[in-house]
Amino acid sequence: MPDLPVDMAQLTQHLAKINALSPDTSGQNRLVYSPGWVAAQRQLLAWGQELGLTVTLDDYGTVYLDLVGRVQPETIIATGSHMDTVVQGGPLDGLYGVLGGLQALLTLKQALGQPKKTLRVIAFSEEEGSRFPTTFSGSKHYARIEDTTGLKDKDGLDFDSARTAAVAQLAGPDIQRTLPKLPATFTELHIEQGPRLAAAKAQIGLVAAIVGQRRYTVTVTGVANHAGTTPMAQRQDAFQATVQFINRLFLLAQSLSPDLTFTVGELALTPNTVNVIPGKVVFTVDCRHTDTTVLDNFETLMGNTAALLSHDPLTISVSRWAKIPPVQLDQQLLAQNANLADQLQLSHLTLASGAGHDSQIMTQVTPTTMIFVPSIKGISHAPQEATATPDLLAGVQLLTASLYRQAY
Amino acid sequence: MPDLPVDMAQLTQHLAKINALSPDTSGQNRLVYSPGWVAAQRQLLAWGQELGLTVTLDDYGTVYLDLVGRVQPETIIATGSHMDTVVQGGPLDGLYGVLGGLQALLTLKQALGQPKKTLRVIAFSEEEGSRFPTTFSGSKHYARIEDTTGLKDKDGLDFDSARTAAVAQLAGPDIQRTLPKLPATFTELHIEQGPRLAAAKAQIGLVAAIVGQRRYTVTVTGVANHAGTTPMAQRQDAFQATVQFINRLFLLAQSLSPDLTFTVGELALTPNTVNVIPGKVVFTVDCRHTDTTVLDNFETLMGNTAALLSHDPLTISVSRWAKIPPVQLDQQLLAQNANLADQLQLSHLTLASGAGHDSQIMTQVTPTTMIFVPSIKGISHAPQEATATPDLLAGVQLLTASLYRQAY
Repeated sequence: MPDLPVDMAQLTQHLAKINALSPDTSGQNRLVYSPGWVAAQRQLLAWGQELGLTVTLDDYGTVYLDLVGRVQPETIIATGSHMDTVVQGGPLDGLYGVLGGLQALLTLKQALGQPKKTLRVIAFSEEEGSRFPTTFSGSKHYARIEDTTGLKDKDGLDFDSARTAAVAQLAGPDIQRTLPKLPATFTELHIEQGPRLAAAKAQIGLVAAIVGQRRYTVTVTGVANHAGTTPMAQRQDAFQATVQFINRLFLLAQSLSPDLTFTVGELALTPNTVNVIPGKVVFTVDCRHTDTTVLDNFETLMGNTAALLSHDPLTISVSRWAKIPPVQLDQQLLAQNANLADQLQLSHLTLASGAGHDSQIMTQVTPTTMIFVPSIKGISHAPQEATATPDLLAGVQLLTASLYRQAY
Repeated sequence: MPDLPVDMAQLTQHLAKINALSPDTSGQNRLVYSPGWVAAQRQLLAWGQELGLTVTLDDYGTVYLDLVGRVQPETIIATGSHMDTVVQGGPLDGLYGVLGGLQALLTLKQALGQPKKTLRVIAFSEEEGSRFPTTFSGSKHYARIEDTTGLKDKDGLDFDSARTAAVAQLAGPDIQRTLPKLPATFTELHIEQGPRLAAAKAQIGLVAAIVGQRRYTVTVTGVANHAGTTPMAQRQDAFQATVQFINRLFLLAQSLSPDLTFTVGELALTPNTVNVIPGKVVFTVDCRHTDTTVLDNFETLMGNTAALLSHDPLTISVSRWAKIPPVQLDQQLLAQNANLADQLQLSHLTLASGAGHDSQIMTQVTPTTMIFVPSIKGISHAPQEATATPDLLAGVQLLTASLYRQAY
């Protein structure tokens, strides 16, 4: 394998530039179709054009940067990740895979020129599900399996209105507007977002599987009433019922499997004032596991518990709005990357991803693999999210070698 | 006692007029110094002038309408309540006492002309504590015991800025700007806001005491992290700790006394997004009882439980921002009203108030009593808050008789 020197300074500059586009003391808030998101995709399109890549934009706002092949241009070796973040997110989740992928392409272009097959970097529009009640809408659209009809955000804004308004700001001369051909393989570079690689002192994580996950909205309806004059025994306190319900769910999740993650991340009381008994509580549930049966059982237990704690006029209703099955990633690409990591003398570990990724969508349409780098203290989805520079470099080196092996 | 016919149609019109000023499908939102509150106080000032009463406005926006006495004008027999509401409140809480008091004055003026002593109707600026972290600021200001220095609302708006801006919109010609003399007695007409009168089929409640109440802000600080990749055992989930804490407090409150009310009415998660473990939770606690010892014990148990559940880096801190002692109201005025209710053949019951009222402030500076009318289904602090018209009439009839006995 030729020497492929990665320009780490340039990658660092690129990361800093995008993260500086929405300077926010509470972290990155690059929610899909927001002004900060538009600015980021626009910057990526500009870099693609400056660096002489073929630039394509689809109707969901996903950006594709191609280094077209000279022998088999129709065979596409793709890499990339998503451009959106969670609310108050970190500087690397998604973005590292996009800009690390771009850096790998530039490294190969500079060292070896045009490849045999086409190399593609993808910046998917949305993966986090932080704004609209959907996840992976970018990669689902690319995979031709998306349906976002009728979705609205917290402010009641329609998905398609937000989408068309934002994408219109990205279009421009020399930017192809189409949904491009699917790739022959897809490799996603990403931070681990967990503590395992750091604990094992491994520089690289090779992902064999991705957990399945489900998301629910739970609505507890009671009766709003005066906080002082309503005897405790005569209350229909929607929040008291919520606390009992969630407390039981934590215990049930633990008993089902220590690996089952259960998170209540979003919650709202109505009317939400100090001296009124809450009449209504709405909250979200996120749970994940590599075994579908465990997720099915937890869903049943949630429903049973909701029924058990509901007593007219107080009701607890559970509604699922996301169901993503566990997936196995490509074994051949994983073996190839393990082999390359050994050649590059990078310590590596094979693991399952506890986070959802665009790769679990891509695996439905093409052989897919993932490369993880360690997250300091396992922190992500928070402003403190970070990875040591040598680890960021190691990830791009392995990705570069993998793309070289596949496209040259 | 002369015949004192109350014009119920006029009272109904007055109530409807004020409630229509802020037409809101989610109930009344007449928070102190808000546009709806300003419109209401301005309407009351206008009525006072039209009806030939002496109109006074103080620096907190409390409105005083006087029917000046001819023999002892310096001796003031006062009635009234507050003009503000909770968030999504009802049409009677506070307002009934203000407009019912006005109706009693008009009834006496029409039937008997000028009284010996001065009759006064008061519309206190704020009682609910729904906007700023303070309660009864209107009656406390009148009683010369208020300190609102440095208070801010949820949007960080300063109490004094909001106050001066709103009161400036109330000032006008023929409106005296001063903090008037304290009254010889104070009688507050109010809805019960509880289920007891309805249960006892009594038209009138005579209030012997008012519960003490305390309000706290609890801050739970954990570590925000990824909802999928952070093993349950390694989380510092601020909301999981919150649920455990509140669940224990419900049990502790119950064991201390069945009459101890405990309400978590307001709560906020940070960052409040579906796939991030909450790093911070802030919520309010409201608890009430007629016995100070019970409130002291509960406060101690809250502190102990917070310390018990805090384990570095997760912390739970409890901060008290309101402490209102239980109070006994005037026995002589209560006896007089019981006697008058018998003469008027109104069924009555003596009880303690589970809600806080301006009367508990007024009792510190003058003999004070309260007259309750039944609340349908005991509902209040909610849009469904209602009282049967015959009961609304009964309350004003008793108030009118009481003011007659004291001022003529």
